[in-house]
Amino acid sequence: MQSVAEVLRNRAISAEQFPAEGRQRVVIERLSPEIDCGLFAIKRTISEPVVVEADIFADGHDAVSAVLRFRHLRQPDWDEAPMTLVENDRWRGTFTVMELGTYEYTVLAWVDRYQTWARDLRKRLQAEQDVSVDLLIGAELIEAAAARAGEADGELLRSYAARLREGQEHAELALEPELAELMARYDDRPFASQYQRTLRVTVDRERARFSTWYEMFPRSCAPEPGRHGTFRDCEARLPYIAGMGFDVLYLPPIHPIGRTNRKGRNNTLVAGPDDPGSPWAIGAGDGGHDAINPALGTLDDFRRFVERAQQLGIEVALDLAFQCSPDHPYVRQHPEWFRRRPDGTVQYAENPPKKYQDIYPFDFETEHWRELWDELKRVVLFWVQQGIRIFRVDNPHTKPFRFWEWLIAEIKRDFPETIFLSEAFTRPKVMYHLAKLGFTQSYTYFAWRNTKWELEQYFTELTQTEVREYFRPNLWPNTPDILTEYLQHGGRPSFIARLVLAATLGASYGIYGPAFELCEHVPLAPGSEEYLNSEKYEIRYWDLEAPHSLAPLIARVNRIRRENPALQRDWNLRFHPVDNPELIAYTKTTDDLSNVILTVVNLDPYHTQSGWVTLPLEDLNVDPLHPYQVHDLLSDSRYLWHGSTNYVELNPQILPAHIFRLRRRVRTEHDFEYYL
Amino acid sequence: MQSVAEVLRNRAISAEQFPAEGRQRVVIERLSPEIDCGLFAIKRTISEPVVVEADIFADGHDAVSAVLRFRHLRQPDWDEAPMTLVENDRWRGTFTVMELGTYEYTVLAWVDRYQTWARDLRKRLQAEQDVSVDLLIGAELIEAAAARAGEADGELLRSYAARLREGQEHAELALEPELAELMARYDDRPFASQYQRTLRVTVDRERARFSTWYEMFPRSCAPEPGRHGTFRDCEARLPYIAGMGFDVLYLPPIHPIGRTNRKGRNNTLVAGPDDPGSPWAIGAGDGGHDAINPALGTLDDFRRFVERAQQLGIEVALDLAFQCSPDHPYVRQHPEWFRRRPDGTVQYAENPPKKYQDIYPFDFETEHWRELWDELKRVVLFWVQQGIRIFRVDNPHTKPFRFWEWLIAEIKRDFPETIFLSEAFTRPKVMYHLAKLGFTQSYTYFAWRNTKWELEQYFTELTQTEVREYFRPNLWPNTPDILTEYLQHGGRPSFIARLVLAATLGASYGIYGPAFELCEHVPLAPGSEEYLNSEKYEIRYWDLEAPHSLAPLIARVNRIRRENPALQRDWNLRFHPVDNPELIAYTKTTDDLSNVILTVVNLDPYHTQSGWVTLPLEDLNVDPLHPYQVHDLLSDSRYLWHGSTNYVELNPQILPAHIFRLRRRVRTEHDFEYYL
Repeated sequence: MQSVAEVLRNRAISAEQFPAEGRQRVVIERLSPEIDCGLFAIKRTISEPVVVEADIFADGHDAVSAVLRFRHLRQPDWDEAPMTLVENDRWRGTFTVMELGTYEYTVLAWVDRYQTWARDLRKRLQAEQDVSVDLLIGAELIEAAAARAGEADGELLRSYAARLREGQEHAELALEPELAELMARYDDRPFASQYQRTLRVTVDRERARFSTWYEMFPRSCAPEPGRHGTFRDCEARLPYIAGMGFDVLYLPPIHPIGRTNRKGRNNTLVAGPDDPGSPWAIGAGDGGHDAINPALGTLDDFRRFVERAQQLGIEVALDLAFQCSPDHPYVRQHPEWFRRRPDGTVQYAENPPKKYQDIYPFDFETEHWRELWDELKRVVLFWVQQGIRIFRVDNPHTKPFRFWEWLIAEIKRDFPETIFLSEAFTRPKVMYHLAKLGFTQSYTYFAWRNTKWELEQYFTELTQTEVREYFRPNLWPNTPDILTEYLQHGGRPSFIARLVLAATLGASYGIYGPAFELCEHVPLAPGSEEYLNSEKYEIRYWDLEAPHSLAPLIARVNRIRRENPALQRDWNLRFHPVDNPELIAYTKTTDDLSNVILTVVNLDPYHTQSGWVTLPLEDLNVDPLHPYQVHDLLSDSRYLWHGSTNYVELNPQILPAHIFRLRRRVRTEHDFEYYL
Repeated sequence: MQSVAEVLRNRAISAEQFPAEGRQRVVIERLSPEIDCGLFAIKRTISEPVVVEADIFADGHDAVSAVLRFRHLRQPDWDEAPMTLVENDRWRGTFTVMELGTYEYTVLAWVDRYQTWARDLRKRLQAEQDVSVDLLIGAELIEAAAARAGEADGELLRSYAARLREGQEHAELALEPELAELMARYDDRPFASQYQRTLRVTVDRERARFSTWYEMFPRSCAPEPGRHGTFRDCEARLPYIAGMGFDVLYLPPIHPIGRTNRKGRNNTLVAGPDDPGSPWAIGAGDGGHDAINPALGTLDDFRRFVERAQQLGIEVALDLAFQCSPDHPYVRQHPEWFRRRPDGTVQYAENPPKKYQDIYPFDFETEHWRELWDELKRVVLFWVQQGIRIFRVDNPHTKPFRFWEWLIAEIKRDFPETIFLSEAFTRPKVMYHLAKLGFTQSYTYFAWRNTKWELEQYFTELTQTEVREYFRPNLWPNTPDILTEYLQHGGRPSFIARLVLAATLGASYGIYGPAFELCEHVPLAPGSEEYLNSEKYEIRYWDLEAPHSLAPLIARVNRIRRENPALQRDWNLRFHPVDNPELIAYTKTTDDLSNVILTVVNLDPYHTQSGWVTLPLEDLNVDPLHPYQVHDLLSDSRYLWHGSTNYVELNPQILPAHIFRLRRRVRTEHDFEYYL
């Protein structure tokens, strides 16, 4: 222990450290939503609410008031929404984002002298105490507010104060709602506390939340086998895609493809003279990331194609694959952007012992990183100028996080309608971090979640935890890189089951076609998830008229998604018990419960499965004492159900899924009953 | 959407916003422990470990290294402890706090070029690839490290590099542990990321974690009835208290007591001429918060008493009750510290409709708050100078949070050994916030948690969630204000049960005596938790020799606490299933499991209860195939148990609790078996 002499000596040298204002009595804690202490923005789409909660309390017994402050970044002053006590010192307020861009929000709270006084006065009057001094205290408070008010309200307030000064017989006046409203308006909020951070919301357009994607290789769009497809051919394919109900058409890279170390069919090391190469080996004598592969056409052809798509309600999305073939102009023009090996060669891509000699990664640790970043931004802006507002980003997890955070912010500052989809199939925390730093949507592990337990666990994490504030899942049952074991072995029923799961579990989903609708399921080799004869390395011809095509079913599923707003959101997903592990059941609902969709899928593509589904009828606003209708929007059949537990049976050879709309019984004034 | 022209115009005026360093590739997230984004310190006692975890990852596939940085605030440079990957990008490191005061800690991580290179080289060698260029890359890395090393290590590193340059036959050299160790030592950690906040640990002495409190009114310490006790009488009481094994003796306020509006016996509004008044009505002509009530003696008497206590291993704790009687010198000397009513009177304490006219609260919203804070700090320092280092703070939740945060920091800066116990019986978030801002220990809801479910739920919250990082519970079965229904009606068995629960659930606990050991249980009125004839308003004479006194049992319980380190910590509490809701069972253990205490309490004070207790034998390092001994340290009886589930039966009229020490079977070299 220190001696008193030591203390006094220390005391003389250490200055008193008072807080700037010792009378700020209100604490605001545990504000939500808040991602990593405010480091990252939450995400919303236009006209969605932001529900903000915080623990708010003061010392002692005084009444506290709180408001939620919010504004678009462009707006100089705060808007305010009221906050109210929920329970246990937890308060809640809500605002709605109405414009693209960035909003910010925080919370302000203070000891409310008028509310405290009025509450105490009420108790005193109930206890029949003498309140004459209390009325004088109130009159002083009201007069102080009057001095802050305009003329009319000031007058009104002063008349209240005057009557209170007349004594006990006017005490009830003090509790008038009009007075409370005026006092709130002219409260000077003494010693108010503002939450220590200001938090941000990124506001996107609706398609960021609800989108239906189709991925297609332009090279395979020619109407006859053996010819390299062009953007003109792609145009002809557009009605087919629109007919299936897709609203985003994503193309793998459309740029010139390198010659050096070009891969042959089925990823062989030596390409034949006619092999087109992988579109991800970007750059050749014809140009790099801002050029068009001449085999596809010209920039004008591309722009025309983009416009035609738009006319059919389809937005074209491009791939951002920031890597180069050895023939990319950058390699000569900017050797400082690539790493050199001691033997003077450029470092190619590797994941030892694997080598990818047809790809040169950028060296993001170059001293010239600013120039590199700027050039990549220029590439994005170039395509923005061609009318592209959706980008699928290839392997973002192999480039620095800070680069993406900067790039996305730079682009969205001027083009807040831009959507970036993160193609990061990697470890969960890396995927989540990319979403936090700005990616609008993200690929998920959906393709590998096949059992009921896996699906319930994963989609509960995605939709019912903090993750949903920043990570918008986009579900793909297949991609050019991913032909899952389930699809390889499950036949057509497995494609239908995965389609229905993707389209109803996710407000955003996509398929890689025509491989998907034609149930392409042969892998390159046993145990591989690569396609045999993959379009990544060759031109394919697809028979879109094949009788087994799922195109009509896909069209029906996408129409159901468009017609049912419950399927256009992710946060409203709830799983329900079924007494059969092969059957999964879940609902999605609108907030007002006017639209309730119950999906039941048979996860076993081989056998008929049946079981009993149990629904929480109260939560769904269904009368447990009367029958209700479940209308299968896939098959258009209708069933009358009763009570919370009902029977389902799904034969995968017919249809492995129900997409039920719940219809409640309605009785008209003429006692006619129908189901709404 | 914006036009391209608009974009280019905006672009011209908005500067590029590059991060300062775009090559910091490592992300450090979700560091724990961290309270409210680093706003508050975690708490430890000397020689306790701080286990720090964080999510750490980089883009791509490069290897990452991380260290935990820590230092005492007085120390200019960081110490470092290694961090290692646990799983799923979660890393962990540990440091131990060895000095009183404040430590800080953070995490540093970087892409480790040498580790990346060595890992990849290993894979390449396994795949039997040509590594000649890779060896040259490694040699360059090693030579760069050599340039940063001292002479000897530099020489050693250069010799490694030279041999690697000689070619493939020396490749295995690159993977030598010595080289790895040297490369780690001279790593320049390029573009390292430091976690964005530095977090704090408040380090207290052991008594902050493990303490045994006794509360006593000095006024009632006279050896004969009817006389006002003095500090001399208190001295004579010390051997009795030490004999029961208490190490903190807490006295209600010892200051002069006001006369104006003094309360009479049983809290009546009018005091008789001999009524001593409530010790919490502080201040009279004789002085205020830095004076001694003359009826108790002089300041010298007090200091002598404190020294005598110290000699018996007892530390005296004083009460900080920051409020005044109307006769307190402050009321005249500092009228600006009190609120005036419009009628000119001083605002007394109120909780409408209740009025406490014998108490004037300070007006912490006074313009002169700095002077008020300073004076209250002077009061604390005055008692610190008298040798007091433990303060029980009366109703801290009715004074501003910022005041306490400042006061505790001011005192602990010079006297880090000081302990502040928060007597805040209020809403949970307020109680937790007081702990966060600096209180060393806190009263809890323990007194009102009587059923098994309540106890398990509450103590799981206190010991197994983030709360434990800042909130140190101190459990009181009774206080002068709290005589619970359970004690009023449960008789002597209820006192024993609550004693054992407090002493084994909490590393810190206390009783208000002699009321507790004498099983005082008559309330002021039915439904009241106030004592009849409370010492708060009158002098009581206690017959310490009464045959029903629990003093011997208390002494036994406290000896068990001293002898068993498992009971001196809170984090190691685990509840175990018993198939009878009236029986509760839990263990506390040391980290090495050398000390395992199993407590079983019958919560029903009226009936014998029995049931089967199930223990997780593996977690307790008990062989499930052989018998083990449970040794009841309360009754000194021993039972042989076998397997995980065993029978217990507790008759509350005999003893309502077991405090078992688990003793494992040990076989000596001579095949003699005993239980350790």
